[in-house]
Amino acid sequence: MLIALAQINPTVGDIDGNVEKILSAIDVARSKSANMVLFPELSVPGYPPRDLLLRKNFVQRNVAAIERIASASKDIISVVGFASPNTDSAGKELYNAAAVCQDGKVLSTYRKRLLPTYDVFDESRYFAPGDTTDSLDITVAGQPMRLGVTICEDLWNDEPYINRKLYGADPIADLAKLGVDLIVNISASPFSMGKQRSREELFSRQVAEHSIPLALVNQVGGNDDLIFDGASAFFDASGKCTVRCKSFAEDMQFVDTDSPPSSLPIELPKDIAAVHDALVLGTRDYVTKCGFSDVVIGLSGGIDSAVTAALAVEALGKESVYGVAMPSRISSDHSVDDAEQLSTNLGIDHRVIPINKIHKVAEETLAPSFKGTTPGVAEENIQARARGGILMALSNKFGWLLLTTGNKSELAVGYCTLYGDMCGGLAVISDVPKMMVYGLARYINERAGQPMIPQNTIDKVPSAELRENQTDQDSLPPYDVLDAILQQYVEKELDIADIVASGFDRDLVVEIARKVDRNEYKRKQAATGLKVTSRAFGSGRRMPIAAKYAY
Amino acid sequence: MLIALAQINPTVGDIDGNVEKILSAIDVARSKSANMVLFPELSVPGYPPRDLLLRKNFVQRNVAAIERIASASKDIISVVGFASPNTDSAGKELYNAAAVCQDGKVLSTYRKRLLPTYDVFDESRYFAPGDTTDSLDITVAGQPMRLGVTICEDLWNDEPYINRKLYGADPIADLAKLGVDLIVNISASPFSMGKQRSREELFSRQVAEHSIPLALVNQVGGNDDLIFDGASAFFDASGKCTVRCKSFAEDMQFVDTDSPPSSLPIELPKDIAAVHDALVLGTRDYVTKCGFSDVVIGLSGGIDSAVTAALAVEALGKESVYGVAMPSRISSDHSVDDAEQLSTNLGIDHRVIPINKIHKVAEETLAPSFKGTTPGVAEENIQARARGGILMALSNKFGWLLLTTGNKSELAVGYCTLYGDMCGGLAVISDVPKMMVYGLARYINERAGQPMIPQNTIDKVPSAELRENQTDQDSLPPYDVLDAILQQYVEKELDIADIVASGFDRDLVVEIARKVDRNEYKRKQAATGLKVTSRAFGSGRRMPIAAKYAY
Repeated sequence: MLIALAQINPTVGDIDGNVEKILSAIDVARSKSANMVLFPELSVPGYPPRDLLLRKNFVQRNVAAIERIASASKDIISVVGFASPNTDSAGKELYNAAAVCQDGKVLSTYRKRLLPTYDVFDESRYFAPGDTTDSLDITVAGQPMRLGVTICEDLWNDEPYINRKLYGADPIADLAKLGVDLIVNISASPFSMGKQRSREELFSRQVAEHSIPLALVNQVGGNDDLIFDGASAFFDASGKCTVRCKSFAEDMQFVDTDSPPSSLPIELPKDIAAVHDALVLGTRDYVTKCGFSDVVIGLSGGIDSAVTAALAVEALGKESVYGVAMPSRISSDHSVDDAEQLSTNLGIDHRVIPINKIHKVAEETLAPSFKGTTPGVAEENIQARARGGILMALSNKFGWLLLTTGNKSELAVGYCTLYGDMCGGLAVISDVPKMMVYGLARYINERAGQPMIPQNTIDKVPSAELRENQTDQDSLPPYDVLDAILQQYVEKELDIADIVASGFDRDLVVEIARKVDRNEYKRKQAATGLKVTSRAFGSGRRMPIAAKYAY
Repeated sequence: MLIALAQINPTVGDIDGNVEKILSAIDVARSKSANMVLFPELSVPGYPPRDLLLRKNFVQRNVAAIERIASASKDIISVVGFASPNTDSAGKELYNAAAVCQDGKVLSTYRKRLLPTYDVFDESRYFAPGDTTDSLDITVAGQPMRLGVTICEDLWNDEPYINRKLYGADPIADLAKLGVDLIVNISASPFSMGKQRSREELFSRQVAEHSIPLALVNQVGGNDDLIFDGASAFFDASGKCTVRCKSFAEDMQFVDTDSPPSSLPIELPKDIAAVHDALVLGTRDYVTKCGFSDVVIGLSGGIDSAVTAALAVEALGKESVYGVAMPSRISSDHSVDDAEQLSTNLGIDHRVIPINKIHKVAEETLAPSFKGTTPGVAEENIQARARGGILMALSNKFGWLLLTTGNKSELAVGYCTLYGDMCGGLAVISDVPKMMVYGLARYINERAGQPMIPQNTIDKVPSAELRENQTDQDSLPPYDVLDAILQQYVEKELDIADIVASGFDRDLVVEIARKVDRNEYKRKQAATGLKVTSRAFGSGRRMPIAAKYAY
């Protein structure tokens, strides 16, 4: 049989638009003589639909859409994800479901059994778990076959880093017992660095254990903080991946289960390339799905804003990116020059709007209140907020979405100004640790074959330039040390004692942990940030603010 | 027997501090010859502990605390909430548990069966559900008795507005079958307007149905957006509430099960009083649990900032509240006068910091970019952001927490400036619809017996005063209409068609719904807001931003 993996990029909430994509893909698949076409998890509402699922009309429209898709499923079997009402007298009102459509009607509806409710996932908020895994006997091209349908997490119960089963049920083992010929999995599995490989290893292991081939389609595209990488795939009964879709782009690949291909032409990107591609896709989708076309970025001459601007150009085109340098009396000459050089390299609109006058008048305005006090953070932040105000004025005036440029390291320890450099609708690199920002800069330049990010921007000592001769390392440990500690404390949720045991000074670890915890209030008000690590500040990390914690 | 309802106000994460409160309360209860003392749900870690529960060391310390509490439980039975490790091979790693301590040790650990995962609740994120409800045979004052322990949601499965059982299990019915003499429930049930009464009705109905008395203790205090109202209570076997703790304050009341009192001296507050008291408690706890003592508020002369300031004075004392009027060239005389009158009435520090110079210089700085454009929202927002910058400078300089003053109606439709009037650490009235803000103002004045909020502030036409002769109703429908539509769309999650059917113009309803949905990006970056309605913008409402939605 010929299976089409329809790796589409739905927009959350846009049922009509998503159904159009699905119907078009069914046409394409049929035109290529595919017997079956697979779509991602919840592809009708888009994943994650969040509290749109609490709107009755939204659910009804999503159910009605399945009727349209079923009607179009003639001479082909479609498997498509939607939210299915639970008509039982108890439990959540919906199932996370897959409709199997054939001959113009819904043949069967499978209900997802394992509902992830951790990290960025809130599925138990909306869905009742399905309680059985049935196989489906179908006829494909005149041949009988036994199909097993699963949805995303149903495959993930032996995820190795958890060290224990998250769920009591095991849908894959159940399907194996039922003697299915093929397992289908429709997914919406968001990207994080390294996850593409670990995901395929997991699938390969599951498939090999039960000797049942697996056809899996994963959503692609950015929806708010989450970036879905696609890389849909087919694994033969030995666990070998024989077909794979592109990463970070819509794609349709075909699996001929009777004559597997001898080679696998589409490779998974390496780590830094994957992060790069994820950020480009995430930026493009956030901007365009929010209805914007252009973005504005404050350019400090530093590495963070340079990398953000370069990614934005790749996402949206150089005509859609506006760079603004906003020097103050404290800014060094090189910061203005480096910003201008960056804009020249990228070919973007560049303007210089000095903040000297606003800065001076703001100081004068505050002077009566500040009289007799020692200059400090309050004075430094005036500059950052003046810049934020200018960028937002341009955003409001011209309809340019403001991209914020802070990295994960500084967001973690609060080395950023609320309502200042934190202004913006999307935080492109807020889940990228500082050391990885350098890696991205080098990758961007290598890939371009020329220095898009000025070499001086990469080489110079990082500075917020909010007071004379300031450098980041006045307030923070070296970034390689900071990033290593943050990875353990934030990304791996390790205890202080474990981090110290891995070779760091206890006072330093506690100081950093304290900074992370104390700056929860800043992150509460941060822009949506694109998730590229296994634990981002965002929808997957929910910390109290008004809390006390002993170290 | 004599039961002490120990209605404490724990701080999330502060295990040591919470245990001290618990141990002190055990001492008090014992000194009054109580046989049993009850503490709220998760009182050791504080509710809700959120992702602190993912920190191993935190969980270990919470378990160790139970040993200390058990050791102190001599000549008295203590029931206390904590997070208990799940040692099974599958499922979430914790239980939401109640330790029953007697004779210096843990007699029994009950595991919460019904885990709320909706609105503000994320319990399935952390906890495995308990699968059995056992009764516990104990000896109290030489008499044998059969006790049934439950935790919060275990009692809530017939909540009437849900129209269906949320859960398949029914712990109360199970306990009734086991023939228990008394049901104990330890809760952390957050406040919303009207919920105190509906909660007691629910309990009374459950108790009467099974003819088993119920002793219930509820957490009190504000933890981030959630305000726990206390009002712990005892219901006799007929379903009558015979003992009740104070609302919105720590309290300990005693229940003598052998001789019920003839009257119920502590009443539940009426709706507007309850909202008032909730906001005062929520403000005080947020400010002090964050480690602040003082707050600063921008005073526009309008009703929202006036009510916020009055609440802050009640929460923190007049010496701890700083009022700042920041007139621009557009501000009317009465706005400056009304702000000053308010500060005089409240007895707070008052200063006037005109923004004329900053406003003018910002316009000059932006002039080259804005050349040839028509003045609009971009220009208006400059003023709001200048004010936000001044308030944050004062906040940074003097360590005053900035309170933001926006109401729910304007936050809903985006009638507010991001990084302008939205600046601040806590949004005191962001869940209070505009019409209710007026109700609060009248209540505050009535209660004080004198006009704390100037009458002119209450009487005048609302205006953001960001352009000449502007009024709110230039952009918005009358507030009574707006609030009625918002209540249906946001609070009740009704469909457009249903709202129209209740008597509103379809175009108007769609326009408002569109505004609500389009301004999700502003609310994403809003300050923590105190929840006082059944559905606030905050942790209990999770909407996508980059989404399309048909109306």
